Amino acid sequence: MKLASLRRGGRDGTLTLVSRDLTRAVEAQAAPTLQDALDVWDSVAPELEKQAAALEAGTAAEAFAFEPADCAAPLPRAYQWADGSAYVNHVELVRKARGAEMPESFWSDPLMYQGGSDAFLGPRDPILMADEAWGIDFEAEVAVVVDDVPMGVSAEAAAGHIRLLMLCNDVSLRNLIPGELAKGFGFFQAKPSSAFSPVAVTPDELGEAWDGQRLKLPMLSAINGEAFGRPDAGVDMTFDFPTLVAHAARTRPLGAGAIVGSGTISNRDADGGPGRPVAEGGLGYSCIAELRMVEKILGGEIRTGFLRFGDRVTIEMKDAGGRSLFGAIDQVVEPYKAPA
Amino acid sequence: MKLASLRRGGRDGTLTLVSRDLTRAVEAQAAPTLQDALDVWDSVAPELEKQAAALEAGTAAEAFAFEPADCAAPLPRAYQWADGSAYVNHVELVRKARGAEMPESFWSDPLMYQGGSDAFLGPRDPILMADEAWGIDFEAEVAVVVDDVPMGVSAEAAAGHIRLLMLCNDVSLRNLIPGELAKGFGFFQAKPSSAFSPVAVTPDELGEAWDGQRLKLPMLSAINGEAFGRPDAGVDMTFDFPTLVAHAARTRPLGAGAIVGSGTISNRDADGGPGRPVAEGGLGYSCIAELRMVEKILGGEIRTGFLRFGDRVTIEMKDAGGRSLFGAIDQVVEPYKAPA
Repeated sequence: MKLASLRRGGRDGTLTLVSRDLTRAVEAQAAPTLQDALDVWDSVAPELEKQAAALEAGTAAEAFAFEPADCAAPLPRAYQWADGSAYVNHVELVRKARGAEMPESFWSDPLMYQGGSDAFLGPRDPILMADEAWGIDFEAEVAVVVDDVPMGVSAEAAAGHIRLLMLCNDVSLRNLIPGELAKGFGFFQAKPSSAFSPVAVTPDELGEAWDGQRLKLPMLSAINGEAFGRPDAGVDMTFDFPTLVAHAARTRPLGAGAIVGSGTISNRDADGGPGRPVAEGGLGYSCIAELRMVEKILGGEIRTGFLRFGDRVTIEMKDAGGRSLFGAIDQVVEPYKAPA
Repeated sequence: MKLASLRRGGRDGTLTLVSRDLTRAVEAQAAPTLQDALDVWDSVAPELEKQAAALEAGTAAEAFAFEPADCAAPLPRAYQWADGSAYVNHVELVRKARGAEMPESFWSDPLMYQGGSDAFLGPRDPILMADEAWGIDFEAEVAVVVDDVPMGVSAEAAAGHIRLLMLCNDVSLRNLIPGELAKGFGFFQAKPSSAFSPVAVTPDELGEAWDGQRLKLPMLSAINGEAFGRPDAGVDMTFDFPTLVAHAARTRPLGAGAIVGSGTISNRDADGGPGRPVAEGGLGYSCIAELRMVEKILGGEIRTGFLRFGDRVTIEMKDAGGRSLFGAIDQVVEPYKAPA
């Protein structure tokens, strides 16, 4: 199944089933919102599946054309957004560029931060920011949505709690990060609202690309229409999703609808070094910070700036046949002025 | 108004109005859950107030005896839990004891971390933990609940968004903190589920004790029935609530129902030094870690251990007349065994 939340009804939108090719949609009958569905997933999933099958067969009543611009995030707000940093290559690069050693334990103990989840952005919402000087960056990630996960779950058992997958743009304010991390409490202002793909999909929609642990497809990102990255989300992911979910649930349970993110997707180069830019035939990056680090490491000088007002970021993932799986995140950075 | 969420109905409980003296209650007619009420606060508040007045007058139909043990947290799950550390005295002490200097900026730039909000504990729920060796501690705090707060709000304007106040036990796993903070991403596993008081109250219930910025009353905590702390929440609070809300909303909006915490309440001694234990006639502390720090600073040796299985923590706040304002958080630490 592919599920979207259209901006109709209340704050949580209206749960909508979307056809596999992302062209048609129908409002779900079994639950008004995605959170409502996740709260009682086992009982509503069969009914949702029936409706999805009818939509696919062209027999669903009241189907309409699917328009990603009408979508909120699949969960417009959520009770938990725990974002891992599973591509340790990314962490090592970012640290190297600022001259910080990476502890060996980072290869065995996942990094994870708690993100704000009360005001997510839809896939086509602008990224509103008061100040370009904050260093506005994107981060292309895969995220999973779980049902109720008991505290202390094993990674093995955690795998069975993954109900949905989606893409995420974990917007980051790079120039606020050093000051914030120096305070010792982790990110807060440096991580504004994240955006998610038009649809969340059940694992069975992904076929062999999803092995229950990793999603083995390239993450395609572009800035102003120019390809920026295509690293494979299934490669160099040091901690798989069940491991990340178990990490998040070690000392507390996770409630149905909790979102766990992969962190910025990042691949090493074939020779083991940092990946090369797409323009040089490499796999590129899933955030600007990483390109800047590579520029500094390889050439001694950072050449690429962060996002400016008017810049456009797109994030998408396609199956082996070139079909968009989640629809595209497609956002423009725009200036924001706070109300007086 | 005093509002509770009884464990009836769904995951979010049933919104219930509670009498000022915490003896009687009636299910709210205007909204099924507290989150539903907060989503449309301005339109439902007058109706809730009418019902609360009837309860107070003894004319509410279907009123029943209020039982804190039947309560979930006022918001059993929330979309945002942003916990400040506004009593900088506490931060300075904790740092001093581990030999770390506190940056001067901590007096002007609030510390805040993002907490998990998908599975809060009710006021009488046990604190279930797999391992005593994690260093189980309580933290007695005041927390506010806001309505929709625009990004970039000023502290002045933020004051008008505070709709409810409640008490919090921000359970902390002290022995997990150093390793987690060393990774640079802030707390995660070190901050398990927090618990909240039986009722959340509107600011007008607090009279002169609430000046729109700080709640000026002693925070009473006890361990196994023995007084542990009574520092005044209105004293030594370097950052007031509107400042904390504005800090949380600097780069993103806060959704209705977001919770912002004060951090552990901590008072300096009259001579400016660290407060003294209650047993020595002092104001005591709102967490065990602080007592341990004072023991180390004053006597060179830590004597008090963290909570053990079977230990009981109570947190309460009383008005000038000695009446409990929020009801008591009253929790016993119990061993937890993860499902196989």
